Amino acid sequence: MTHAQRLASVRHDLQQQQLDAFIVPHDDEHLGEYIPPYAERLDWLTGFTGSAGAAVVLARKAAVFVDGRYTVQVRHQCDASLFEYRHLIEQPLLDYVLSELNTGARVGFDPRLHSRSWFDAAQQKLAARGLQLVPVKHNPVDRHWHNRPEPTINPALLLSQEYSGQHSEAKRNRIAEQLAAGNIDAQLLTQAEPINWLLNIRGRDIPCLPAVLSFALLHKDGSVQLFAEPAKFEGLDLTAHCGHNVTLAPFNALEQALTELGNKGARVQLDPATANAWSSLVLEQAGAKIVFADDPCMLPKACKNPVEVQGSRAAHLRDGVAVCRFLAWLDRRLEQPAPEREDEGTLADKLLALRAEHADFVEPSFSTISALGPNAAMCHYHHDNGTPRKLGQDAIYLVDSGGQYLDGTTDITRTVAVGEPDDEMRKLFTLVLRGHIDLASARFPAGTGGLQLDALARMPLWQQGYNFDHGTGHGVGHYLSVHEGPQRISPKGSTVPLTTGMIVSNEPGYYRENAFGIRCENLEVVQPADTSGDIPVFEFENLTWVPFDRRLIDSNWLDARHIEWLNDYHATVWEKISPQLEGEDLTWLEQATRPL
Amino acid sequence: MTHAQRLASVRHDLQQQQLDAFIVPHDDEHLGEYIPPYAERLDWLTGFTGSAGAAVVLARKAAVFVDGRYTVQVRHQCDASLFEYRHLIEQPLLDYVLSELNTGARVGFDPRLHSRSWFDAAQQKLAARGLQLVPVKHNPVDRHWHNRPEPTINPALLLSQEYSGQHSEAKRNRIAEQLAAGNIDAQLLTQAEPINWLLNIRGRDIPCLPAVLSFALLHKDGSVQLFAEPAKFEGLDLTAHCGHNVTLAPFNALEQALTELGNKGARVQLDPATANAWSSLVLEQAGAKIVFADDPCMLPKACKNPVEVQGSRAAHLRDGVAVCRFLAWLDRRLEQPAPEREDEGTLADKLLALRAEHADFVEPSFSTISALGPNAAMCHYHHDNGTPRKLGQDAIYLVDSGGQYLDGTTDITRTVAVGEPDDEMRKLFTLVLRGHIDLASARFPAGTGGLQLDALARMPLWQQGYNFDHGTGHGVGHYLSVHEGPQRISPKGSTVPLTTGMIVSNEPGYYRENAFGIRCENLEVVQPADTSGDIPVFEFENLTWVPFDRRLIDSNWLDARHIEWLNDYHATVWEKISPQLEGEDLTWLEQATRPL
Repeated sequence: MTHAQRLASVRHDLQQQQLDAFIVPHDDEHLGEYIPPYAERLDWLTGFTGSAGAAVVLARKAAVFVDGRYTVQVRHQCDASLFEYRHLIEQPLLDYVLSELNTGARVGFDPRLHSRSWFDAAQQKLAARGLQLVPVKHNPVDRHWHNRPEPTINPALLLSQEYSGQHSEAKRNRIAEQLAAGNIDAQLLTQAEPINWLLNIRGRDIPCLPAVLSFALLHKDGSVQLFAEPAKFEGLDLTAHCGHNVTLAPFNALEQALTELGNKGARVQLDPATANAWSSLVLEQAGAKIVFADDPCMLPKACKNPVEVQGSRAAHLRDGVAVCRFLAWLDRRLEQPAPEREDEGTLADKLLALRAEHADFVEPSFSTISALGPNAAMCHYHHDNGTPRKLGQDAIYLVDSGGQYLDGTTDITRTVAVGEPDDEMRKLFTLVLRGHIDLASARFPAGTGGLQLDALARMPLWQQGYNFDHGTGHGVGHYLSVHEGPQRISPKGSTVPLTTGMIVSNEPGYYRENAFGIRCENLEVVQPADTSGDIPVFEFENLTWVPFDRRLIDSNWLDARHIEWLNDYHATVWEKISPQLEGEDLTWLEQATRPL
Repeated sequence: MTHAQRLASVRHDLQQQQLDAFIVPHDDEHLGEYIPPYAERLDWLTGFTGSAGAAVVLARKAAVFVDGRYTVQVRHQCDASLFEYRHLIEQPLLDYVLSELNTGARVGFDPRLHSRSWFDAAQQKLAARGLQLVPVKHNPVDRHWHNRPEPTINPALLLSQEYSGQHSEAKRNRIAEQLAAGNIDAQLLTQAEPINWLLNIRGRDIPCLPAVLSFALLHKDGSVQLFAEPAKFEGLDLTAHCGHNVTLAPFNALEQALTELGNKGARVQLDPATANAWSSLVLEQAGAKIVFADDPCMLPKACKNPVEVQGSRAAHLRDGVAVCRFLAWLDRRLEQPAPEREDEGTLADKLLALRAEHADFVEPSFSTISALGPNAAMCHYHHDNGTPRKLGQDAIYLVDSGGQYLDGTTDITRTVAVGEPDDEMRKLFTLVLRGHIDLASARFPAGTGGLQLDALARMPLWQQGYNFDHGTGHGVGHYLSVHEGPQRISPKGSTVPLTTGMIVSNEPGYYRENAFGIRCENLEVVQPADTSGDIPVFEFENLTWVPFDRRLIDSNWLDARHIEWLNDYHATVWEKISPQLEGEDLTWLEQATRPL
């Protein structure tokens, strides 16, 4: 089927269902960051493969909405004779709908693919202009998507307490007590990560996110109804792993379970920002009382226990060995003939191969950003979206990558010289690194949110009239998503206090369009600090151990204490990583970690 | 009348009006920071004279609610046999009411003395438990308050454009355009500061706040109805000053004006956080459509125009001369016989006398905090609340003071040695000063709020396990309130972006109970910075020019750049202040500003 035919078939359904518009978001029913191939409805309809976006189909027009990252890509991938292109933020989808349709129009949407918050806001916005938001029972895309990929049935993993550090029962009881105290009968969980954390299970449903896609109901007695594909658990003893009060049912049993709760008039809590509208509508129609609140798993999941922290340390050591071997190899490769035989793709492959040498490596934690010269100025660059750039023509190379290990998740960015960096590149690299060090050296009392610390990482750039247009740090899971909340270090960031066990990235950068890009990223875990002062304060314990490229450092832009920090850091890298290296790699590390 | 009699008379009124409770807040009908003596209802009823608090009278009990600053004072001032003491934040007034009264109870309040926001929240909270919030027509306190002070009739001042920098008409037209664009017919203004700013008037109704207490209606055509005591404007030509479309009426004409707006079905905007509930209830009952929004005067008032900035610079120079002369005198006085003849009161008086020598000095901008030794550990200490402490027994002295000048408002804190400070005091002073310098040296792009910068001033203390329990910086008016919004530098601070012309204080501190207190405060004005970077950034231009006490600095706790900043600062103090000093004062300044 061509995209024109697909569009026509959806339009045909619209007519049948008396709809004037139908909205196709990128999200699936879990509303998480990643979706599996069978949920790529936006791609099926429009050809757009980005990780965020939406489309709207009207009787005679259609439009694709993407954010700033994808304005070029959408033009390559979508047929302009079928779809207008719009900026998701600047020309929001609902504004487009309102500008195209008149009072009385019916706007269809699939309530499984939108959050409850979106639904409430959209309904109000459309109603104010006399339009009706209509939940469809059958998604027109699904009806016409022939040869749709089947969901992959990869076996689940029951994560032993040796890795998780806490039995599922203890986790469930702790949250169930909170539910009971709040007079809540059950908590609906709809995102994969909190459910996998709660039950100490993992999966391989989606690349990079080692989780079983699922829904769950956590009851106030600590019992859990898990809704997931049972075939993934074949041969696994979930009862022995979790206890008798965790039961497994297929996805299609969820509606019945929600209806039963509703029939009992239960008070059911859910997070309107992450739970799909469908589930809360089913609950409400059946008579449940809905309580909107943050997902209570998110905060305990974010605060890693000592076993998870120890696992993360171990994962980072082994990840550091792989990255050091890669950087040592890269430096050697540059000295050998024909460096231009390597490109961004072969570099990324080499790094992956080195990581994969370790038995506990499962998969990358996200799609590697391997970017030479001007490509590094695009924060979300991927070498597969065009022709990978060849080594040999640029001064600096940025590689942002990570691994999923059974005991932790890693995420590291290094920017290294692959040619002759000029003074300005070295100045800007040093300002970025200085910001990284200032944040890494921070201490702060209980109650401090990432929003309050973000400026530390930016101030050296701000002083000189520079900035970077992304957050400074995101939360990182434990053998789970490389992006997690609620902690976040960002100008628009979270006021959720940073506290013991939270893992965050520290990744200031600088990007000069069509020229180069710089980012310095380590992961850090929040720990109590030891002072002789009046009050307890926290500090960041560094997890990532890979040298920062001395060739890019201009110490004129550093204070004595930054140089001291770097020398200490490099001495520790040597101490931790050198026992795992040999030969030329070891020689490289010795050079790379000598004092400034 | 004793307080017991006063309480009994209020209870008598409660019975007559069939009320089970009556709430007496500290606020007056303008809900500003300061209230005049005739509005001290809380003091009349309870004897408590603090600047914030409330009381609630029940049939058989009564309670006074104060915050952490006043827990000692309230015990001195209020008769425990009449009033229970409660913590305003930890045991909120409405929770007390709910714990004492049953369903169906009627809780009286004077709608002129509470904000609309408070009213909405309180009504909801009480209604949820079946209690009724009843606005009283006649405040029982007012009915029984015999010998109540008359409002003082100090003449108003028409502030010439030489000081204000912008004609009232230009200010009014700019905001009126915004109102018209938002389809608003009129803006109700209820706080003294924005009205005085808008009309370029000033007054002497309240000590330290040079404003005419008033209400105003700003219409979408730029015309203003001002409601204030006409006697204050006798002999002044308000029409010549403001234009024919600014009219003056007495306070009691406001109700009629609001009713007329309501009868026309006008859309009237007001700030529910600062406008009293009475005005919006009158409007609603008369048929007006109320639009809740921030007071549109606040932001333009906060962004001083170049004339106001220049005026502030001049006011600070002259204020700096007075403070330098005071500190020089203090050092000499300590060398003379019997320093114990001076106490916190005589020191404050001396400083005021030196300020008052200048013709443009009007009054203090707030009540001077003159605190020796352990008294300085109380952030809101006032020497009049007990016996002023005598010079000669303590190591350090903290003086926080400011002046109202026709061309600007000042606020400065210096902490100085008056004995033998020990190493720990010097360490902590230096950490506070280091934080002050780090904030003063900040640069930041458009969109940065004070909340993002606050940690800069605290980080040196946080590093060593210390903190201070107040905001780092507040906005400061131009010959208006020494505390103004919306800008604020604080952990719970404002995300309103800091921008050109905003004046803020920079005042980190450290307080050790029963021992000593430290604070270093300058005022700073936000200005565009000059860089060769990619983006425009702002920086702080310093306004305050008085040396920091070199005897309290331990440079081991400073980096090279802090010492450079201090030496530059002191060189500039010398350059700006020395031409105004002579004799021993000049010698003192030379010593006080020599390089570290």
